[in-house]
Amino acid sequence: MQDEILNKIMKPKSIAVIGASTKPKTIGSEIMQRLRDYKFNGKIYPVNPKGGIIEGFQAYTNVEEIPGEVDLAVIVVNAKFVLDTIDQCHNKGIKGLVIITAGFKETGKEGAEVEKQLLAKVREYNMRCVGPNCLGVLNTHPDITMDATFAESLPIRGDIGFVSQSGALGGGILNILKDLNLGFAQFVSIGNQADINAETMLEYWENDDDVKQILLYMESIQNPQNFRKLASRITKKKPILALKAGRSAAGASAASSHTGSLAGADKAAAALLNQSGVIREFSLKNLFANAKAFSNCPIPKGNRVAIITNSGGPGIMATDAICESGMQMAKITDETKEKLRSFLPSAASVKNPIDMIASAPIEHYQQTLETVIKDENVDMIMVIYLPFLGLKDIDVAQAVMKIKAENPEKPIVGVFMTTSDFFTKISNMEVNMPFYMYAEEAAEALCRLDQQRQWMEKPMGKVPVYDVDRNKVKEIISKSVKEGRDQLTTLESIDVLQAYGIRACKYGLATNMDEVVTLGNSIGYPVVMKMTSKTTSHKTDVGGVVVNIRSEEQLRNEYNALLKRLDEKGLLEGLEGVIIQEMVKGNREMVCGIATDPQYGPMMMFGLGGVFVETLKDVTFRIAPLTDLDASEMVKSVKAYKLLLGARGTTPAQINQIEETLLRLSQLVNDFKFIDELDINPLLISEKTGEGIAVDGRIKVRMKEAQEFLGCMAGACMA
Amino acid sequence: MQDEILNKIMKPKSIAVIGASTKPKTIGSEIMQRLRDYKFNGKIYPVNPKGGIIEGFQAYTNVEEIPGEVDLAVIVVNAKFVLDTIDQCHNKGIKGLVIITAGFKETGKEGAEVEKQLLAKVREYNMRCVGPNCLGVLNTHPDITMDATFAESLPIRGDIGFVSQSGALGGGILNILKDLNLGFAQFVSIGNQADINAETMLEYWENDDDVKQILLYMESIQNPQNFRKLASRITKKKPILALKAGRSAAGASAASSHTGSLAGADKAAAALLNQSGVIREFSLKNLFANAKAFSNCPIPKGNRVAIITNSGGPGIMATDAICESGMQMAKITDETKEKLRSFLPSAASVKNPIDMIASAPIEHYQQTLETVIKDENVDMIMVIYLPFLGLKDIDVAQAVMKIKAENPEKPIVGVFMTTSDFFTKISNMEVNMPFYMYAEEAAEALCRLDQQRQWMEKPMGKVPVYDVDRNKVKEIISKSVKEGRDQLTTLESIDVLQAYGIRACKYGLATNMDEVVTLGNSIGYPVVMKMTSKTTSHKTDVGGVVVNIRSEEQLRNEYNALLKRLDEKGLLEGLEGVIIQEMVKGNREMVCGIATDPQYGPMMMFGLGGVFVETLKDVTFRIAPLTDLDASEMVKSVKAYKLLLGARGTTPAQINQIEETLLRLSQLVNDFKFIDELDINPLLISEKTGEGIAVDGRIKVRMKEAQEFLGCMAGACMA
Repeated sequence: MQDEILNKIMKPKSIAVIGASTKPKTIGSEIMQRLRDYKFNGKIYPVNPKGGIIEGFQAYTNVEEIPGEVDLAVIVVNAKFVLDTIDQCHNKGIKGLVIITAGFKETGKEGAEVEKQLLAKVREYNMRCVGPNCLGVLNTHPDITMDATFAESLPIRGDIGFVSQSGALGGGILNILKDLNLGFAQFVSIGNQADINAETMLEYWENDDDVKQILLYMESIQNPQNFRKLASRITKKKPILALKAGRSAAGASAASSHTGSLAGADKAAAALLNQSGVIREFSLKNLFANAKAFSNCPIPKGNRVAIITNSGGPGIMATDAICESGMQMAKITDETKEKLRSFLPSAASVKNPIDMIASAPIEHYQQTLETVIKDENVDMIMVIYLPFLGLKDIDVAQAVMKIKAENPEKPIVGVFMTTSDFFTKISNMEVNMPFYMYAEEAAEALCRLDQQRQWMEKPMGKVPVYDVDRNKVKEIISKSVKEGRDQLTTLESIDVLQAYGIRACKYGLATNMDEVVTLGNSIGYPVVMKMTSKTTSHKTDVGGVVVNIRSEEQLRNEYNALLKRLDEKGLLEGLEGVIIQEMVKGNREMVCGIATDPQYGPMMMFGLGGVFVETLKDVTFRIAPLTDLDASEMVKSVKAYKLLLGARGTTPAQINQIEETLLRLSQLVNDFKFIDELDINPLLISEKTGEGIAVDGRIKVRMKEAQEFLGCMAGACMA
Repeated sequence: MQDEILNKIMKPKSIAVIGASTKPKTIGSEIMQRLRDYKFNGKIYPVNPKGGIIEGFQAYTNVEEIPGEVDLAVIVVNAKFVLDTIDQCHNKGIKGLVIITAGFKETGKEGAEVEKQLLAKVREYNMRCVGPNCLGVLNTHPDITMDATFAESLPIRGDIGFVSQSGALGGGILNILKDLNLGFAQFVSIGNQADINAETMLEYWENDDDVKQILLYMESIQNPQNFRKLASRITKKKPILALKAGRSAAGASAASSHTGSLAGADKAAAALLNQSGVIREFSLKNLFANAKAFSNCPIPKGNRVAIITNSGGPGIMATDAICESGMQMAKITDETKEKLRSFLPSAASVKNPIDMIASAPIEHYQQTLETVIKDENVDMIMVIYLPFLGLKDIDVAQAVMKIKAENPEKPIVGVFMTTSDFFTKISNMEVNMPFYMYAEEAAEALCRLDQQRQWMEKPMGKVPVYDVDRNKVKEIISKSVKEGRDQLTTLESIDVLQAYGIRACKYGLATNMDEVVTLGNSIGYPVVMKMTSKTTSHKTDVGGVVVNIRSEEQLRNEYNALLKRLDEKGLLEGLEGVIIQEMVKGNREMVCGIATDPQYGPMMMFGLGGVFVETLKDVTFRIAPLTDLDASEMVKSVKAYKLLLGARGTTPAQINQIEETLLRLSQLVNDFKFIDELDINPLLISEKTGEGIAVDGRIKVRMKEAQEFLGCMAGACMA
């Protein structure tokens, strides 16, 4: 049903251009011209109060006067007429809208209010709407051939579905793509994305075979959880490449003034895109250069690259680039080497990079490529050409493409270090492989193909559900919330962790000397003594943590000393008691926890703990909820992973148990969404067992949400 | 004198082409054609045994028959005739040679032998020689106009001095430069660099005003210390941009087979280039894109960038790129903002990035740029253009260039997201600013200008000389060497460090229980006990280090236990004794030391120590000897620097004292060049004083060199 309405926008049989104009260099005129010039395969109805003929079409003074059925209304009237226009479209039975008109959310509060009304109408009338404040839409499919934009160049046909959050950019892109021999299947400038956004288009294109890859230019992600759900499914079928701008604080602030949407924290965006299998690009240049590879190459079977070159230097640079991007230089088989030696001159190198030397004629390119492509150790091939006496670039390119056509199963990319004339020629030809000027660009493109391979080969992760004591956590937090504390005590925090099956060290709370001693003796020395207080959150600053207490006598002394210190500082009153804790021995301190990004929601963190958290930043983030694979990748992706494996004779950590700790935390924050922060620092790796043991915990909730949620839990919605 | 001979190569008045040919598509024919086509401003004498006329010039059967004086001989004869040809050149009185001919070192041992003989002749005859196995040389100065290469395109005039270690690459580069509107002043393909290498050309170009920037393509650096000396001086006057290939192991191996020269370890190369003020590039693309900025921009006064754009999205991407490359977004003054508001539409943003919005006419570009260029808070400007209704790219470019011509003092770069036609047009025009397609390229170019500014503003560092006890070190090492040990004992190592004024913890050697106890009592508890042995280098593996010994009684027990352990493992015999050491309390472990790269020589290392050295790799390297600035940068450049400053209430480290430690180590390895490895791990930061204290030391020497050196020191050369 939703797809049907989207079809009316992306694959319409008839279009009304409301605000069509005869005045040159206006949007109302440009849109009409482009619909005509690109030969829209359907009916075009210009609407203008003055009527007449516009770009050769009969104009109507009102959309309701149009005699035939109208699938799509492209609206370019002044912002103040847009709401009425939508009413008229409804009267006419139109379901698809593209609102080019600007002057809404991006202009401030007033505009945002009108945009709200606009969306309300769209919803009420069961319409779908692109924009407002956008460049328009296009579809190059021969059955449609719709260019309802006002960009400078006409589009060329291709396999890309493109969503741009910047309209202006869309126009520039059309120019660039032409030069790159890349084309759109469909393009949507979502503008203020009042209704239709990137996620809408992802879902729409999921099963549209005309769209073979999806490119996104985003300044914000509207619904990160939904984006993740859709993207992680779709990327298993076709690649999604995304350029997310507003990464820097200054950039985010510019993005915010620009589109009226808050740019989310970049590390959250990075985690989200990574978990969704989206290939992230950091410049338009790379976005398109790599899209070119997806347009022309199959997904490889592995990451082993062979380089064929007629010049040593570029071969070395290519080797550097391939190794630096994490791929492998293919080990050419002896059989292949022998064949190559049979026709290449003795000065040539048949080791990878295969250097045919400068004298290589076109036949050597052909024979070498034909030989190497059959090598079972080779997954991808880079062919490098530098101009030498008499050998013409375009001839080499054509020879290579011929062999590619006969051997379509392996990706081949060309590095042609030649004049721009060559690339101009290529851009006007049918090609079956991508050509680049520089080896580094080609290596990056291959790397992207390989990244897609890895993602597609990876199984979908599962979000495990553990048997936990949810009611216990509810009780603990309820108590804290009722007492007006958004910050749980250490004791409460550790209880929460234990209720979710997270290994925390043995402990007990003592409020007087007798209890202190009883606990110490039952846990066994050495123990740690930690104060727990409703008023003091940073315990170390007041000497509230004493470690390595080796005897009852020492415990007595330390307890007395603590009381004295607190008394002197006037902090005795908030003291709930002291926790007497098992002292876990270990020299590896990790950290894990939960942080909440205002836009992306709860994020899990894991990494090297202790004093290193802030300085070395050897930590990694993922959006919750975590799948088992997410947890596994988190643990492996920090540098400190090597420490966990057991460096210099330390006990190897229980990796599975640490992963489970992360998964249980993820379940916790999923069950109690109002948890704002949770830190386990340190998660100490036991020198004895290799377990990760929470020896400290800190939990903070968002009061208002917590109150609502707990109230709800207590009531009917508890079921 | 040397310059005079180099002038005969780079600025000759007459050239003999030995091996000139009439046969098309041979090098002997191509060189002649290009000398003629590029209109060499001097005499051309082809030499060919058959005589006759070649490319319109009278050919001579032997170089000695040439009637006039010959400055430069370009040799393209078969490799087997090259030695004789050099003799003939000598007879003719020729001092400058460019040997294009291949078939020397690059082909293996035999070729290397002939190349040795070749060099011997060049030295004997007091000649200078480019090559062999190279593409040739060129000089575009109007007084010279020499193209003695066999590349495909004729060169265009520019300000770049280029040295290429890959001949083939040189040819490709000429094509690319043409498209980029970049040109050479001079170009040298050094080939096997038997005589003339990159360093020769650096020195030659140092005071040649026709060469305004130097670009290097290198696969190896022949004499790193000399390169550093020259480059760090020259970069204060003009930028040097270098692409060093063979960074990866596979790439280095390919480079080695390719040019017959060993590619050095990349981290050493990185350190060398950094310390020399050389701007390192990682792809040809970036090398040229950034050279374009140096060709057309002054060095800026600061790092504050203003962005002027007619489209929000690219403005955001540019902001991201500027922030990510470490520059700052300029804070536009209120005065400037007011002026901008006076003519820009209300929807425009006058905050940086300044978004004039899509409707901006050419006058807005002009007025905005003229206003912003005068803002005192702005050091550099990026002008972004996207095609909109009717505004022509080339008109905007020309308007901007006109303002640039009137305001030459600040760098301006253009980002024109338009068709390749524009860039083709631009490449055929005189331009006074660089134009790029993408914001990221422009941001990187600005970043390079800023990098050059920072380097030029930085004072030259000094290598301090400390008062040290050189003889003591000589004695210690002599003893070890005489005993056949390349590895000093811990005790000896610490003595060496102390002799060079490096703070190591108090200690003494004890060989029996009485000495152990006496030492312990005199140093004061707690102490550390460490075994010192001639046979065991990794002490911790055998429990040879016991820390935190708090009393005489404990010391006695631990000493007995150690002896027992060693006895059980059969390691008692090598035991020299135990070191009783002051126990330094500190929770920050750093590491510093010396490692020797086979090609680059001694390298200093500094960073986070303990178990983290290998896993986190938070370490930095510099080539020795260190200047005071090198030492300061080393300490600041590691992430753990924040820990040194005093995180979470720890004592701030004595940064100066740590820098001095590095400088004293540098002096040590400079005085005793045969030191192969030296580790201080940990260099513990005292919690009490903040000093960096060496609590362990390990020194290894290269035996043969040490023997020679110490023998020499003992003899006459000691003076």
